[in-house]
Amino acid sequence: VSARITLLTDFGTRDGYVAAMKGVIVTLAPTAIIDDATHDIAPGEILTGAYVLARYFRLYPPGSIHVAVVDPGVGTDRRALAASIDDRLIVAPDNGLISEIVKDSRSTRLVEITHPDIVRPDRSSTFHGRDVFAPAAARLATGLQLDDLGPALDDPVLLQSPPVSIHADRTVGEVIAVDRFGNLITNIPGDLLSSEAKVSFRNGFVAPLRHTFAAVNPGELVAVIGSDGFLEIAVRDGSAAEYTKAWRGIPITVTR
Amino acid sequence: VSARITLLTDFGTRDGYVAAMKGVIVTLAPTAIIDDATHDIAPGEILTGAYVLARYFRLYPPGSIHVAVVDPGVGTDRRALAASIDDRLIVAPDNGLISEIVKDSRSTRLVEITHPDIVRPDRSSTFHGRDVFAPAAARLATGLQLDDLGPALDDPVLLQSPPVSIHADRTVGEVIAVDRFGNLITNIPGDLLSSEAKVSFRNGFVAPLRHTFAAVNPGELVAVIGSDGFLEIAVRDGSAAEYTKAWRGIPITVTR
Amino acid sequence: VSARITLLTDFGTRDGYVAAMKGVIVTLAPTAIIDDATHDIAPGEILTGAYVLARYFRLYPPGSIHVAVVDPGVGTDRRALAASIDDRLIVAPDNGLISEIVKDSRSTRLVEITHPDIVRPDRSSTFHGRDVFAPAAARLATGLQLDDLGPALDDPVLLQSPPVSIHADRTVGEVIAVDRFGNLITNIPGDLLSSEAKVSFRNGFVAPLRHTFAAVNPGELVAVIGSDGFLEIAVRDGSAAEYTKAWRGIPITVTR
Repeated sequence: VSARITLLTDFGTRDGYVAAMKGVIVTLAPTAIIDDATHDIAPGEILTGAYVLARYFRLYPPGSIHVAVVDPGVGTDRRALAASIDDRLIVAPDNGLISEIVKDSRSTRLVEITHPDIVRPDRSSTFHGRDVFAPAAARLATGLQLDDLGPALDDPVLLQSPPVSIHADRTVGEVIAVDRFGNLITNIPGDLLSSEAKVSFRNGFVAPLRHTFAAVNPGELVAVIGSDGFLEIAVRDGSAAEYTKAWRGIPITVTR
Repeated sequence: VSARITLLTDFGTRDGYVAAMKGVIVTLAPTAIIDDATHDIAPGEILTGAYVLARYFRLYPPGSIHVAVVDPGVGTDRRALAASIDDRLIVAPDNGLISEIVKDSRSTRLVEITHPDIVRPDRSSTFHGRDVFAPAAARLATGLQLDDLGPALDDPVLLQSPPVSIHADRTVGEVIAVDRFGNLITNIPGDLLSSEAKVSFRNGFVAPLRHTFAAVNPGELVAVIGSDGFLEIAVRDGSAAEYTKAWRGIPITVTR
Repeated sequence: VSARITLLTDFGTRDGYVAAMKGVIVTLAPTAIIDDATHDIAPGEILTGAYVLARYFRLYPPGSIHVAVVDPGVGTDRRALAASIDDRLIVAPDNGLISEIVKDSRSTRLVEITHPDIVRPDRSSTFHGRDVFAPAAARLATGLQLDDLGPALDDPVLLQSPPVSIHADRTVGEVIAVDRFGNLITNIPGDLLSSEAKVSFRNGFVAPLRHTFAAVNPGELVAVIGSDGFLEIAVRDGSAAEYTKAWRGIPITVTR
């Protein structure tokens, strides 16, 4: 079986930066199969990248190699890391991008990438996706071990997700992402919710908790337990983000 | 030869939903090669998905496995189907997404996906792309037969494309899609047209039928027989949609 | 090792044109692995395509097959070409798309694609990506030699990049591209610049030359030697294009 490498970046595809990374990978690991995860993370949005990465990281099989590059600090002294997390490998800048995949892991080993064939003096100061992370992933694909890449790293940068507060009569969280459909994804775990929950937020909008988007009429608000197990708010056949003008960071209150 | 699986969705790539599907496929079918067809179908536009799917479905070789997920009814009792159509396999929600590939098929066999390993009680109610269609495609890739997925389905949902009316002096159809270039794709088959045809539509716009876009001056309207064999209207080096403010559904009249 | 084929187009993915190309390739070359380079070149922008292609062309290994289709002259008598450039293969319309990869090549051989199995009389007049370039790439992937595709072509269309003028006290170039991050990419080679260079342009904007984006405060202009070796202008954690309203073609002056 060929090595399987996924790519997540905030590069878009239109400038050819992603293609440059692919070329570097294929040169070093000719049989690797590269799956695009996404290149549409909003520029520099590390936390969004962290959430998106967590959506597929463990769905890939053990041994998969994941590359994640959202890297506004490129060229500074921020470290480059490689890790084995629950038997999947990841290479990424040490800026919090791995926060969500580390959080619930059973086993994590991290190293700083310092291998001189990878962190070369002649690397660019603006494009480590091509010059550091792509070669690191390719070397892992062709047999280099994690520990070959550099020394253990014990203090990775981890970003905190916003907290959820649980009260006797209500649970309060917030919108942590708005997806392509305009669904408001919250940080409130679905297993905290009773089936009669009411979800309310800014400007008096209220959404009933239902099993599926289609349990309300087209154009109406509905709350569901989303596919990652968290509460989300949608408008059937529409966009909750447009309808409610809600955005990331808006508080969400759940009552019985 | 590894199984070849294509993906068409309305998910975009930015939220990681597509990557989740890929992870599920690769876990079950480690050697499968996944080709992205598109993830940019407008949210919920089933008929657009049906047209786009038909543009490449038969160009892939026999044995290819196609996944199509534009699924506004996810979580309701709409069925999940798998089909063999002219020796290519497809898995999709039963909502009309296969309408255009079924239409001119020589041989079609359909089943409802009910296999308990695929339609699991613990599947989400909002993301069958990951929980039903990806595993169904992967199982087909690793040797499961169509009939193993569930019982025959004889009454798939089929959407009607708008009709073309043929008169003695004119043919009337409509714009069924506007592509990225702003070309207006119609439902009028090219073989109905004489070489002296004149194509006219709303607000008095008239386009001469030519062999190629470049047969008119830059900025001018031109009608051509498009690459799928249907009449389309373009502006050379420009956008017919912008120029004429036409959109899907606009009637198009062809006269000699 | 399977043949590796990359695709660059201005088709977007939403209409299924790219998927049609992939289907044609896979039918003729079933084991080929197709890497998407980009489909987001602005419609008809040949020179942009040429720059983007150059960003990854040589990073892929010898023997790679690259397909590039930005083809506003499709259906006219513009030629289709195939070339071996520094041991990588490329198929593209003969309209200047290969200008940047030819420029610094050590070895280039070009042919016009005339092979009757590829340039078929029944090909469409609007979609040679599917009907000419995809089959040409697939045939190269399965053993056809460059010279089998057609006769030598000695006079390819080559587009001139804008000139850089070097004076005693200053160097003047221009913005040749704006990338997804809003960075202004210029045609001024980095090795022309002293470390004390000042970069100035329209409306009195001045950017200091630094080693990395993060050497200035967030929101400030900075000039760096970009990852392709050319001067580029950025705003840290922002968009230089938005901040300065600069665009392609704007003159850029570098002084000590």
